[in-house]
Parts: sequence; C-alpha cells; structure tokens
Amino acid sequence: MQQMTPAAMKAIALSDVVIGNAFYLEMLGSLLNNKQVIRSSMGKELDRAREAARLAADHNVAMVSGGDAGVYGMASIVLEIIEHEFPTQDVVVLPGVTAATAAASRLGSPLSGDYVTISLSDLLTPWEIIEKRMDLASQMGTPIALYNPKSRGRPLNLGKALNIALKYKDQETPVGIVKNVFRDGEEVLITTLGSLTENYDLVDMHSILIIGGEESRIWKEDKNVKGIITPRGYDRKYVY
Amino acid sequence: MQQMTPAAMKAIALSDVVIGNAFYLEMLGSLLNNKQVIRSSMGKELDRAREAARLAADHNVAMVSGGDAGVYGMASIVLEIIEHEFPTQDVVVLPGVTAATAAASRLGSPLSGDYVTISLSDLLTPWEIIEKRMDLASQMGTPIALYNPKSRGRPLNLGKALNIALKYKDQETPVGIVKNVFRDGEEVLITTLGSLTENYDLVDMHSILIIGGEESRIWKEDKNVKGIITPRGYDRKYVY
Repeated sequence: MQQMTPAAMKAIALSDVVIGNAFYLEMLGSLLNNKQVIRSSMGKELDRAREAARLAADHNVAMVSGGDAGVYGMASIVLEIIEHEFPTQDVVVLPGVTAATAAASRLGSPLSGDYVTISLSDLLTPWEIIEKRMDLASQMGTPIALYNPKSRGRPLNLGKALNIALKYKDQETPVGIVKNVFRDGEEVLITTLGSLTENYDLVDMHSILIIGGEESRIWKEDKNVKGIITPRGYDRKYVY
Repeated sequence: MQQMTPAAMKAIALSDVVIGNAFYLEMLGSLLNNKQVIRSSMGKELDRAREAARLAADHNVAMVSGGDAGVYGMASIVLEIIEHEFPTQDVVVLPGVTAATAAASRLGSPLSGDYVTISLSDLLTPWEIIEKRMDLASQMGTPIALYNPKSRGRPLNLGKALNIALKYKDQETPVGIVKNVFRDGEEVLITTLGSLTENYDLVDMHSILIIGGEESRIWKEDKNVKGIITPRGYDRKYVY
C-alpha cells in the first residue's frame, strides 16, 4: 500500500461496502476490517459495477480497481452503468499510480515524456484495431508501454505486436519488462527488441513491457545494466 | 498531499536535503521541517540535478518533481547526470500520479484504456517532431492527453495541434480541460474539438487537455454535462 494515495485509502476507510476483484482486495489488509467485502472475479466486471451502483443507494461503496481505475480499470464501466441505469447516483473517480509509470520507475526513466500505452488484450478491443494502433505508435518514435502483453488465451499477440514494432524500430531498441511491479515476486528484466524472443517466458498478464523510443538507451555502470533512460532532450538545449 | 504516495512521503521524511522546483516544494508543508531545502526555478533543471547528485555523496537527498517524476519530470535528467558524472551514486525513482490520469479522474473516465500523451512544449522537443506525433496519434483513434498545452512563449502551438487532430477526428469529439488539477483554483471544462477555440483562455501551462478517442462521448444526466466516458468495450462483449 506504499503506492496507494491517501485519498484512495480515505475513500475506503469512509465506505461501508468495498467491492472489487479478489486479487486487488487481497492487498488492502486491515483497511477491510469491519466492512462488507464483496469479492468479484475477472470477467464479471459488468455485474460488479451494477452491484456497486445498486448498493450505493443506501451505502457508501468503494469500488477497488488495480493501479489507476481510469486506465484499463473499473472507472469507465461503473460510469457507464450509472449513466444507463442509475443516472442520479453520485460517484467520484480517484486516480492512482498506473502500472506503466510504476513499471517505468523500476527501470530508471524509460518513458520521460511523450509515450503511448496499448493493451494487447483483444477481449474488449478487436485485434485489427490493436495492430493499427501498434503500427502508428511505432512510427511515433516514442516509448510504448504494453499492458496485458501475454496470457494463456492469447500467447501469440505479443510476437505479432513486436514484429510490427520491428518494422520501424531498431533491433537494439531497449525493452524493459517488469512483472508484479511493487508486489511480491517482482522481477525486472532489461533487454533489446531483437533479443526479446529469448525472454518470452517472463512475460505474463501481470507484466508491463516498455519498448523504448528513438532516443532511449540502456544505462550502464561499467558493464552492469542499471536501467533504461529516455532523455528528455536537455542535451539539445544545453551542453553537459 | 492527498494524491502523494506513502512511499514518496517516506522518502522525503528520510532525507536530509530536499531539492526541487519552488512551485512543488510549496505543497509539501511540514514535511520540509528541519531539512535543508533547496528551491530551484524553471529552466534550471540541469543545475538542480547536478546539485542533487553532488550533495548525495554525503546526504540523503530527495528530488521533488511534479506528478510522476518519470513523465515530463526530473527522473531522466537526474539519471543522465548520474550516468555521466556520478556513475557510482545510488538512486531510486518513485512513481506518482501523473497529471494525465489525475485530470482524467476529474472528467469521469476519458482515457479508459489505450491513450497517448504528448507535450506541446517545444523547449526540449523540436516542433516538427511534435507535429508528426500529433498526426500519428490522431489516426490511432485513442484519446490524447496534452501536457503543456499553452504558455506565453508558445501561444500558437495548441491551435496548430488541434488543427492536426481535426484532420482525423470529428468536430463533436469531446474535449476536457482541467486546470490546476487537485490544487487550489482547480477548474474543469468539458467541450468539443469544434468549439474549443472559444475556450482558449482557460488553457495555460498548468492545464491538461484531453481529446477524446473515436468512442468517447459526453456523459449527461438530463441536460447536465457530468463528464466524458470512453467505453472500454464491454458493449462489444456483453449486452447491457
């Protein structure tokens, strides 16, 4: 909970009912004491949002979502349910540290400016759209943060996405992988776009993968790899 | 400080020296008690990073940066200085709530998935590159979060960027502007890409501007505008 904002903790503390995916509720520990806790599972997002909105008629309800609720989280689905079915219900969205920037912090500073986030999950977005976005993003020259890079149901999406990136990006482009960022079992790997296929096994749905931009480089002290730096461009403005 | 992580607060609490832009240090209040505080000004980022790295030889130094240090913040410049001039210095980057997702939370859920962040400041990035990124990002169909949308030194960049967006995006595309997000004087405005020129005055360098994606819509209760929703795509998977 070292990465959870006081505003989010306070919202949970003030609620009577806490609802969310069991995986995220697990992390809240004693914050859940003396509250009604509703553990939901993946794939049940619509039911979960409807249940939260229904209970909010006479309870303070906190919907817990991973990272930042507004990025691949529960905010949009809760608002859609409220819009369609509970239009007078009050709701407040609180931001959090999103997985892309959390992962970036463990890699040094690979984003440092303009960047793109793309999820490789085609459960909710058609694969053709993901490919189109990946193609345009790879032409931008910025870093790309990939969410949901691999899962059992879609083992090949990552390989396809990397092949698109390789149409425009050099083999030596730095790539950082962070699995379980700020959670038990955190793992960090720094490699290059050309060598990534050898490290596929580390990548799963709890990983964030950051592909560097045109100016990203691997940061070393002697021969030790310390991280990835994407310069902000101060070298264009000043001389070191 | 309701949006600052416990990890960041703890890092400051454990430091002897706190250094940063005076604007951000101002917000830390009593966290700065009994510490050496070095207030730096905009444009002095390189000196600030060097001073922090130099002092770190015999102090615990906290560099404070706005929002998430790894996104348009001080992380990259500090790491570059360490890489070049203080290669054995230990450093840890801590993530935060970045301005794009903070602003998004005040607008409802306008990002909700894949998105692009672009800064319109051409102090560190040549304008041609910004225009190219803006063009490609507008073709992606995702929301775009614009940082540094306007300042006295570059009053015309925003208009140029919006004209690029209008090559691909509908006039009715929702646009949200949040000025001073989670700070004194916060203002929120929801409009459309076609009507934005009438609201230029609100936009300044303390604003974040979010341009909706293909599926983004303005969320209303009766005639009251409540926010912007970018659906995640559950409507493609389930029937409401």
